[in-house]
Amino acid sequence: MLYFMNDYSEGAHAKVLDALIKTNMQQHVGYGMDEITGDAKMLIKKSINRLDADVHLTVAGTQTNTIAIAHFLRPYEAVIATDLGHISVHETGAIEATGHKIIEMTSKDGILTPAMIDAAILKHADEHWVLPRLVYISNATEMGTIYTKTMLEDLRKTCDQYGLYLYLDGARLANALTCADNDMTIEDVANLTDAFTIGGTKNGILFGEALVVTNNALKEHMRFSIKQRGALLAKGRLLGVQFKALFEDDLYFKIAKHTNEMAMLLKNGVLELGYKLVTPPSTNLIFVVLPNSVHAKLKELCHYEAEQPYDENNMEARFVTSWATPKEDVLQLLKLLKDFKEI
Amino acid sequence: MLYFMNDYSEGAHAKVLDALIKTNMQQHVGYGMDEITGDAKMLIKKSINRLDADVHLTVAGTQTNTIAIAHFLRPYEAVIATDLGHISVHETGAIEATGHKIIEMTSKDGILTPAMIDAAILKHADEHWVLPRLVYISNATEMGTIYTKTMLEDLRKTCDQYGLYLYLDGARLANALTCADNDMTIEDVANLTDAFTIGGTKNGILFGEALVVTNNALKEHMRFSIKQRGALLAKGRLLGVQFKALFEDDLYFKIAKHTNEMAMLLKNGVLELGYKLVTPPSTNLIFVVLPNSVHAKLKELCHYEAEQPYDENNMEARFVTSWATPKEDVLQLLKLLKDFKEI
Amino acid sequence: MLYFMNDYSEGAHAKVLDALIKTNMQQHVGYGMDEITGDAKMLIKKSINRLDADVHLTVAGTQTNTIAIAHFLRPYEAVIATDLGHISVHETGAIEATGHKIIEMTSKDGILTPAMIDAAILKHADEHWVLPRLVYISNATEMGTIYTKTMLEDLRKTCDQYGLYLYLDGARLANALTCADNDMTIEDVANLTDAFTIGGTKNGILFGEALVVTNNALKEHMRFSIKQRGALLAKGRLLGVQFKALFEDDLYFKIAKHTNEMAMLLKNGVLELGYKLVTPPSTNLIFVVLPNSVHAKLKELCHYEAEQPYDENNMEARFVTSWATPKEDVLQLLKLLKDFKEI
Amino acid sequence: MLYFMNDYSEGAHAKVLDALIKTNMQQHVGYGMDEITGDAKMLIKKSINRLDADVHLTVAGTQTNTIAIAHFLRPYEAVIATDLGHISVHETGAIEATGHKIIEMTSKDGILTPAMIDAAILKHADEHWVLPRLVYISNATEMGTIYTKTMLEDLRKTCDQYGLYLYLDGARLANALTCADNDMTIEDVANLTDAFTIGGTKNGILFGEALVVTNNALKEHMRFSIKQRGALLAKGRLLGVQFKALFEDDLYFKIAKHTNEMAMLLKNGVLELGYKLVTPPSTNLIFVVLPNSVHAKLKELCHYEAEQPYDENNMEARFVTSWATPKEDVLQLLKLLKDFKEI
Repeated sequence: MLYFMNDYSEGAHAKVLDALIKTNMQQHVGYGMDEITGDAKMLIKKSINRLDADVHLTVAGTQTNTIAIAHFLRPYEAVIATDLGHISVHETGAIEATGHKIIEMTSKDGILTPAMIDAAILKHADEHWVLPRLVYISNATEMGTIYTKTMLEDLRKTCDQYGLYLYLDGARLANALTCADNDMTIEDVANLTDAFTIGGTKNGILFGEALVVTNNALKEHMRFSIKQRGALLAKGRLLGVQFKALFEDDLYFKIAKHTNEMAMLLKNGVLELGYKLVTPPSTNLIFVVLPNSVHAKLKELCHYEAEQPYDENNMEARFVTSWATPKEDVLQLLKLLKDFKEI
Repeated sequence: MLYFMNDYSEGAHAKVLDALIKTNMQQHVGYGMDEITGDAKMLIKKSINRLDADVHLTVAGTQTNTIAIAHFLRPYEAVIATDLGHISVHETGAIEATGHKIIEMTSKDGILTPAMIDAAILKHADEHWVLPRLVYISNATEMGTIYTKTMLEDLRKTCDQYGLYLYLDGARLANALTCADNDMTIEDVANLTDAFTIGGTKNGILFGEALVVTNNALKEHMRFSIKQRGALLAKGRLLGVQFKALFEDDLYFKIAKHTNEMAMLLKNGVLELGYKLVTPPSTNLIFVVLPNSVHAKLKELCHYEAEQPYDENNMEARFVTSWATPKEDVLQLLKLLKDFKEI
Repeated sequence: MLYFMNDYSEGAHAKVLDALIKTNMQQHVGYGMDEITGDAKMLIKKSINRLDADVHLTVAGTQTNTIAIAHFLRPYEAVIATDLGHISVHETGAIEATGHKIIEMTSKDGILTPAMIDAAILKHADEHWVLPRLVYISNATEMGTIYTKTMLEDLRKTCDQYGLYLYLDGARLANALTCADNDMTIEDVANLTDAFTIGGTKNGILFGEALVVTNNALKEHMRFSIKQRGALLAKGRLLGVQFKALFEDDLYFKIAKHTNEMAMLLKNGVLELGYKLVTPPSTNLIFVVLPNSVHAKLKELCHYEAEQPYDENNMEARFVTSWATPKEDVLQLLKLLKDFKEI
Repeated sequence: MLYFMNDYSEGAHAKVLDALIKTNMQQHVGYGMDEITGDAKMLIKKSINRLDADVHLTVAGTQTNTIAIAHFLRPYEAVIATDLGHISVHETGAIEATGHKIIEMTSKDGILTPAMIDAAILKHADEHWVLPRLVYISNATEMGTIYTKTMLEDLRKTCDQYGLYLYLDGARLANALTCADNDMTIEDVANLTDAFTIGGTKNGILFGEALVVTNNALKEHMRFSIKQRGALLAKGRLLGVQFKALFEDDLYFKIAKHTNEMAMLLKNGVLELGYKLVTPPSTNLIFVVLPNSVHAKLKELCHYEAEQPYDENNMEARFVTSWATPKEDVLQLLKLLKDFKEI
């Protein structure tokens, strides 16, 4: 059985696992106050070239978005996001569960534009409406697309114009920053946002996200929010060990590069075979328009997500490559796609 | 200055005010446990022909929607409503503040259709999404349109199919049920929904809504929710006195009839003058496409709501009639609209 | 039947009712943006001699406490109050329902002391605990006792030492400020707290509280919180009319003076008859240790609250006087207490 | 430096770590729908002899308590717990952040008694109070004490009498069930509660709790709550692998037995040396009355928690043993305690 279901099907990259094994019997204070976590945070600060940033290591993505957004907002303040945003559709209403509305703007490719922010602000006139206060974007997006530096700069300007915070969900940030279409550095991300996350779970570690806060106004008492939302891991050192491994020797970016290469191999192969893409992706989420007849056979030999019907005869299939995807698997998948099509 | 701003510009209908004056020095127990409130509830139960219903008297509309929906739902459950629904746009995120997402379906005329519910259900596949659980509609809608009996029956069927509660916001229920296009009784409303409200504030009393719960599964402990949301009025008798006055001698419906007559007088006059309507209304909200030049003059002589630009040369103006609108005021407004147009 | 159940058994004082009648058919913009509300707020600002204060008129007490405290606090911040505080025990967990813990300090007489704050702060060491941030007191307290100016000054100092907000629930503020034991003015209250309320419901109006915010850091966007919590009354002018009547000619204080005089008449009479008090009150809540035998007879002729058993042979009875209590009723109650005791 | 700070200072037991290493490159579906997690859940169900139970694997303790309690309760319902309960004092108000009050009953040894429940119920009379609905206990308690079978049966009876759910926080359940004073099995725990947790983090795994729900009325849609609270781990298999290792060959209980033996060695040694205990513990939390002079020296050579002052000359020190504590460390700590005392 082939596996293109997601980028979290395996455990951890060998270097990360080794670090966990090596430190297993060390004794450390709990809740992330240990030295290794300190080292990991410092490596991240250096990587983004912002020693003034606050870095927190948390367990999972939905959890981190919830902590950050609930921490940043007052009760009547709201988030602007696309209707494809992870918080809009795949977090079981976690943001609303903390009391905040998400103003969802329609998007085809997962990209939020300044014009969407303009429209949202215009509509929210007075105290009978929620007060838009934070812009949520994902990079890479949920559709595998990415923001260019100019796009992010424009969002920053729009946010400044309206007094909005800009928060970037980086669950797949490594993929975004190492793909061919990218023209940004992680420093740019740090400098153009108020806060952002560096996803680990989908990039080679067992679990873990880094929440980076650069805006001073948003920093205070974050550990209270982390604890209150159940994310202050007793053995916090586990996060430190893993992120330290990721940010030594640029492992974080090397892993993602492989992921992207496998994705492009798949994308180009798929296009060559004459399949259509739902959206042209830059990173590791490949949404393919798959004839129902192909799907009927392929699903017996390969795990992937059947998103929704595309039209009467086709469906949208999502293929995801990961740090652990071997080249042979991509080639074999392409072979199957070729075989099933010809019949 | 003419007043077509809303249907809550004046105080209370004379009969309601008289009842308040007459009972002012009576001594009653607090929090709605008094006899008069008991009488009022019984009158409402008889009016809807459901002696088994639970009736609660609350102060205001946003408050009542919040109480009801927060009481009915589990933390991960969500509401389906139109994107024009009062809870979607004019309650400062009150529903989200209690932790529940509103799944907003695009609508032009404020009407929610079974097809919209189908679409919402189809999309919410598993535990990564919120669980749709309650359908919110307003009758009359926020656009002045209404549901026919068939429409409400179809919604009921769709809700039953998916295990959804049907909740009807009746802030302007009296207007809906007394307008020319209506074919429903208040009994129908009670029988086809799980819970609904009977709005008083916009129909001749100082303040007050009746929350009616007919579904047994939703009844228990409602007074706890009312108190927790700050709606258990110390002098609860004030609500009893007012609703008793409303539901004696059908005052509730008589008042609304006048409101609707004034609205139709205005609507027909406006159309005769050659103005366009944004949406053809059945009740007392008249959305008129007003040339900017007319607006510039009219706004000096009449209060009404300038909703938003319609196009470059026109804006959407909302004119509202009420129980207190004199015929002369409508005629004078029409005269102004005529004069300003001719120039 | 005599009525000593509470201070909200009747409707409104004649002057307040007259003002409502007189303005009934005036047309006003909604949601408290009308002129009368403006006048009322200005009268309150002048009365407290703080033209810089923000004043908001809301409907009910629990509602107002919820709005204020939820508006002031971040998600992980908590309230310090006594275990007798209205928010601790009589608001159905409304504060917790907005996400905030109340740290309850044991008190016999309803008074919160600086030593209690010290103890609460000492215990809450780090991010594993909530962060104490607001001190809630009531004046008069739920036991009918009051704060002297020195006591309030000491609380202010303690709050400043720890960076805490001081919020005073003035549901019965008029009674506190007009009783014999009082040495404070309403100006003192305004100057020594960050925010406080001026209760109307229990002092002669139909319903209504004024929320006064003097600390600039707490003012912003309060109307959003008021609307979100369902307290932005459509016919907001009703609150304006009533508070204007209250703050013209010092009616607010005159009413309370009568209430207190009736209370002291009752208290002294009760003591003369040889009954014991649970707590010596300064205002209009008289907690009497009532022999069960007396209670058995008295309850047939008089409404009052039977709080809880005092010991095997006695219970705690709460007698409350109000703006509407006639002297004759107090004398008759005392006569009953005398008669039932002698037998 | 010696380590008696807590029972989560090291990583994982060798068998658990091995299982993680061995399964690292296996491909599994996400979010706990994998086979290994299925196996782990089945092992747990067999261990508690309740195949009908629902078992969910979550990441951390505060998180699990929050999920469970928020899932079980309606908005106006409250928890009864001791004032030493983990949710009362060490979870940053996480329960209140979901909207629910904790009614805290004073306890010296961390044990909640039926009499405390009686008292809480008696006080909460009507809808002006929260509605007590769930009893929270910890076993072992936060003071290292435990419930006997009779004590738990009595709590069950009291809960049934008042219609309360009984929820047991088993963060240190293994320690409770393997200590000398214990007379219960894990089956008893399953049969006498409505839901309980089986703590992993403090008993030899990297992280993880099992939430067991035996009451059918509480089971539905739990995965929605888990996801909404950010606890649905992408690589859910990590929890499955660890719990499978724990519940094969009774490793779960073997580990705890060692922990308890080390604790008893320490406890007996401490008593022999003439030190006093704050509370006689049954498990691995030893609260010692430590003279300030001893503390001043000891803290330079050993990590442990200095809880709070005991009196002028002494403080309360908490020493914790764990699955990884070597006997030599206990002996060395006792030697230090002896040396510092003699001087």
